Amino acid sequence: MSSRVTDKVEGREMDITRVPSSLNHSENLPYVHKVGIPQRQNLLKEFTATLKETFFHDDPMRPFKDQPKSRKLVLGLQSLFPILKWGREYNFSKFKGDLIAGLTIASLCIPQDIGYANLANLPAQNGLYSSFVPPLVYAIMGSSRDIAIGPVAVVSLLLGTLLQNEVDHKKPEYLSLAFTATFFAGITQVTLGFFRLGFLIDFLSHAAIVGFMAGAAITIALQQLKGLLGIRKFTKKTDIVSVMHSVFSTAHHGWNWQTILIGVSFLAFLLFTKYIGKKNKKLFWVPAIAPMISVIISTFFVFITHAEKYGVQIVNHIQQGVNPPSANKIFFTGPYLVKGFRIGAVAGMIALTEAVAIGRTFAAMKDYQLDGNKEMVALGTMNIIGSMTSCYVATGSFSRSAVNFMAGCNTAVSNIVMSCVVLLTLLVITPLFKYTPNAILASIIISAVMGLIDIDAVILIWKIDKLDFIACMGAFFGVVFATVEIGLLIAVTISFAKILLQVTRPRTAILGKLPRTTVYRNIQQYPDATKVPGILIVRVDSAIYFSNSNYVKERILRWLIDEEEEVKENNQPNIQYLIVEMSPVTDIDTSGIHALEELYRSLHKKDVQLVLANPGQAVIDKLHASEFATLVGEDNIFLTVADAVLTCSPKMQEHFLA
Amino acid sequence: MSSRVTDKVEGREMDITRVPSSLNHSENLPYVHKVGIPQRQNLLKEFTATLKETFFHDDPMRPFKDQPKSRKLVLGLQSLFPILKWGREYNFSKFKGDLIAGLTIASLCIPQDIGYANLANLPAQNGLYSSFVPPLVYAIMGSSRDIAIGPVAVVSLLLGTLLQNEVDHKKPEYLSLAFTATFFAGITQVTLGFFRLGFLIDFLSHAAIVGFMAGAAITIALQQLKGLLGIRKFTKKTDIVSVMHSVFSTAHHGWNWQTILIGVSFLAFLLFTKYIGKKNKKLFWVPAIAPMISVIISTFFVFITHAEKYGVQIVNHIQQGVNPPSANKIFFTGPYLVKGFRIGAVAGMIALTEAVAIGRTFAAMKDYQLDGNKEMVALGTMNIIGSMTSCYVATGSFSRSAVNFMAGCNTAVSNIVMSCVVLLTLLVITPLFKYTPNAILASIIISAVMGLIDIDAVILIWKIDKLDFIACMGAFFGVVFATVEIGLLIAVTISFAKILLQVTRPRTAILGKLPRTTVYRNIQQYPDATKVPGILIVRVDSAIYFSNSNYVKERILRWLIDEEEEVKENNQPNIQYLIVEMSPVTDIDTSGIHALEELYRSLHKKDVQLVLANPGQAVIDKLHASEFATLVGEDNIFLTVADAVLTCSPKMQEHFLA
Repeated sequence: MSSRVTDKVEGREMDITRVPSSLNHSENLPYVHKVGIPQRQNLLKEFTATLKETFFHDDPMRPFKDQPKSRKLVLGLQSLFPILKWGREYNFSKFKGDLIAGLTIASLCIPQDIGYANLANLPAQNGLYSSFVPPLVYAIMGSSRDIAIGPVAVVSLLLGTLLQNEVDHKKPEYLSLAFTATFFAGITQVTLGFFRLGFLIDFLSHAAIVGFMAGAAITIALQQLKGLLGIRKFTKKTDIVSVMHSVFSTAHHGWNWQTILIGVSFLAFLLFTKYIGKKNKKLFWVPAIAPMISVIISTFFVFITHAEKYGVQIVNHIQQGVNPPSANKIFFTGPYLVKGFRIGAVAGMIALTEAVAIGRTFAAMKDYQLDGNKEMVALGTMNIIGSMTSCYVATGSFSRSAVNFMAGCNTAVSNIVMSCVVLLTLLVITPLFKYTPNAILASIIISAVMGLIDIDAVILIWKIDKLDFIACMGAFFGVVFATVEIGLLIAVTISFAKILLQVTRPRTAILGKLPRTTVYRNIQQYPDATKVPGILIVRVDSAIYFSNSNYVKERILRWLIDEEEEVKENNQPNIQYLIVEMSPVTDIDTSGIHALEELYRSLHKKDVQLVLANPGQAVIDKLHASEFATLVGEDNIFLTVADAVLTCSPKMQEHFLA
Repeated sequence: MSSRVTDKVEGREMDITRVPSSLNHSENLPYVHKVGIPQRQNLLKEFTATLKETFFHDDPMRPFKDQPKSRKLVLGLQSLFPILKWGREYNFSKFKGDLIAGLTIASLCIPQDIGYANLANLPAQNGLYSSFVPPLVYAIMGSSRDIAIGPVAVVSLLLGTLLQNEVDHKKPEYLSLAFTATFFAGITQVTLGFFRLGFLIDFLSHAAIVGFMAGAAITIALQQLKGLLGIRKFTKKTDIVSVMHSVFSTAHHGWNWQTILIGVSFLAFLLFTKYIGKKNKKLFWVPAIAPMISVIISTFFVFITHAEKYGVQIVNHIQQGVNPPSANKIFFTGPYLVKGFRIGAVAGMIALTEAVAIGRTFAAMKDYQLDGNKEMVALGTMNIIGSMTSCYVATGSFSRSAVNFMAGCNTAVSNIVMSCVVLLTLLVITPLFKYTPNAILASIIISAVMGLIDIDAVILIWKIDKLDFIACMGAFFGVVFATVEIGLLIAVTISFAKILLQVTRPRTAILGKLPRTTVYRNIQQYPDATKVPGILIVRVDSAIYFSNSNYVKERILRWLIDEEEEVKENNQPNIQYLIVEMSPVTDIDTSGIHALEELYRSLHKKDVQLVLANPGQAVIDKLHASEFATLVGEDNIFLTVADAVLTCSPKMQEHFLA
């Protein structure tokens, strides 16, 4: 008989009971500590705590605490418009860095903008517009110091595909639908940020994004074969099979050797400058200005040779002047409203994913904090304003942000500088782009999107997690062989399936005692850990919820059956105690409690006593609320596995002697 | 300087290093054990292991192992048709129990069938048909010994609502669509079982089912007001507002007092017998035969008084004879095919949920194993055959299974007995039901569905888990105030949201040392646990996946900021080590590794060393694959928190002295 005190622990008082001396094999035996039962929290408190942890875990109101009202107003304005904060400390030395960075990204963005607008089936000027207004808005509202705002390849491709599905790009409704989608992309982003639902974009896993981006890069590069080879009749589809078929079926009389010559030679030049930039980080500006130089040289070349008369396609016309208003073109009624909303929501989410990933990366490098939700509000506002000034969805660009960072930008002023250069371009230089060959834009885009293919990341994913690799490849092949949407769908589905797998089939492990310690560990991981005769110790590696409660119960019973067979074969003592190590069981719900009750009853019929070790705060609370703690017996719940074994073993010996 | 050996552990060899004696505060200090790095598993092995654990965790092939071929065939047949197994040991004493149970549930099911068919807007005979063929099929293929098969209230209501949405029940297509839905319900069930996807139904949480059932019971009871009050014009909607409006707007001239008299007096009688049955468990047969008695008395009463001439509605006509074939009525083409499939899939899933819950409950009571996936195949086959013999979706009934159990059934033979009684009824007695008043059927249904409202379960859910309670109430109010589908949708959505919440916002806890032990526990749960000066110990309570990796990183950094502020206020030593207790971190993916890397870098900038304690098998494997283990330093990964503290504390003292 054990003389262990088993009174109920009342409230927060802790009852330290000493194991009776008969069990004391060693003088230094640790005290048997009872499992702590914290006072039940007030319901409202518990609820607000959960709410806070879900939506406000970053405690955005922290700086406002205990401040006078006027200060609160200032802080509030500063939080909405960070420029009010960093602008006060802005000085000339910072501007120098921003100026150089801004000029560099401007020279990179102008040719890219024209090409990306083409990807979205939009006129070239809309690409430039999108590099003028949105960066200005972001500079006022955004808090990332390194992000470069403007149109990006993947979003342009996605938007182009989705819009083309609804209406042909030659119709005037196409442009209106594009603005509608941009408007709702902004609304989606602001909504997610305002309601602090930013965590939703975390549901696209890193692996899925890597695959999706690589697939999109291949797809975009394939699309450029049209411009690079000078093909006039080209498929509307984006999958590799259709595109390759389109390319080869036109090989005989559809290709234009002059175009190919220009395109391929400049592509080689661009890739060479990229290589130089990679080899020597200090020469990062070489690949950054190379596109602009290519545009200038090739335009000049076409202009003097009149290559357009030999079948080299040229840009022809870009509308001159600043962004015209477009609020009146947005569909606020009619069937296009819903379509625009749907397309905008998808494009907005993808744009967010890219911008937030960039923001986080550079914030971590320069060690400043970034509020994801506030960023979303800034990006969303910028797209809403953009949709009313003839822009399409803009976001942070991977490649240009990296150049911005390396060129030594200090604040969002580099975006303002870029924006001013784009404005000048729109006002003055656009007529000069007339003779720019499309092949140059194609080679610029190809060399830009190559950076989206991250082979190293794929290898690392393969090494670390095979399931992640499947998600990555699924997204990649989905985009390449089907459409961007299908790739995206596959990526999201596999990501979700992984979460569901995790919560439906949690791991369980058999624990053994590590030699010369009182530590119990997984015997698979620690082959020198030994089982305790007559006792089976099972660890459950997850919260026990409705989605896995049945599985957990059945799995534990199956461990017991396996163990009993083994014990019988080896003539060892029968299993009399089943200790469930609950350290990783962070929570339990009603279904979980029912499963434990069924487990207890099944074990009881087999004359095996259920013993629990180290239930956490939430769990012990619910074990008491449901009175399962009384059913299993308060004295069968222990602080550690060691304590449990220490108490069970001698009882078992008594049992054998009796 | 520490003399701790830091060689790489190679393969499975275990390296036990002793803490240098200078750190030995006590002679009984435990050995510092290294974290076990199991040999990397073969990729294929790993993959099959995951697959097996996901789909075949119950090891269904176990009995087939090492058996001769002929024996395998017998076992295979027995596994498909369990009657071949238990049939061989069947004897007369078992039959006695089954006979009594079968007769009891038959007397209960006949009036219920007629009423439930009415709920599904189907002719009365289809209800009876569904209690003839499906129970026979189940008896041959099913493995539950206690379940009573037939039409049930909730599925009938659901089917009625969904079918009525598509086509009016007065059209002949209605019946055909019902058979189509039944066919696809069966197909869905067989598919889920065959592909071992049975775990999908676990995604409807217990709490959601309790709420859904209670809501459905209220809705069904409200529908019966039509029959009970003798109203002729009644709303087609099922929500409480429409129904109550319909009831009260007809109060003046739509109610029939003769009907009310009959209905209410028999309802009182039925509820009284229920009360008796509850008070004295031995009298369970009283409420079981009461419905049949009510039908007989009331029919006789109407027959002699000709009450139908005073406005009492009667059943009128039930077609006599055995089930006619209906395979030719099923839509295998056309627009109704998709509709039938959709309705069938939903109804099939709900039917499964009910049947599996019943099966599990009684299997646990009598302590036999039930293979959920095999059960699904049996239930599905029975519905497919049913759909071809004029039956609609049948499943296990809560109330009749309980009566079956209490009446002492031993095997599925009780279902065969019931089936035979129903056959006799169809062949001989149906004309006698002509004068049965509808009010009686209404009162039988009301008294039957009251059992679906489980107040005790709701109270328990409230006590145990508030979020479960919200799911429960959401489903309840959704069904009562909107429609069955919306209630179901709410139940599923809240269940999923809960899973997502769990994986997006895992708990974290600060650990402290329990006095006079080397055990570190949550300081919120154990108020007497004390923090170690200069060291912050954080436990992460979940696998670190893409869905929570950012949150986990940010939360840990926030704990550190909070702690640093507190430390500064109290003039305690600065935090120099951050120990992450990883016991509950059962897995990590590429996003998780990235988050850890970012955490490491952020800490490094603050001069805080990251230390990991007890990473599990899957985690340590990936830490090495990604070379994060090298980055953080192999000697900063410990077996236990105690080991980590033991090594960090003296280093810190050196730091102070220097």
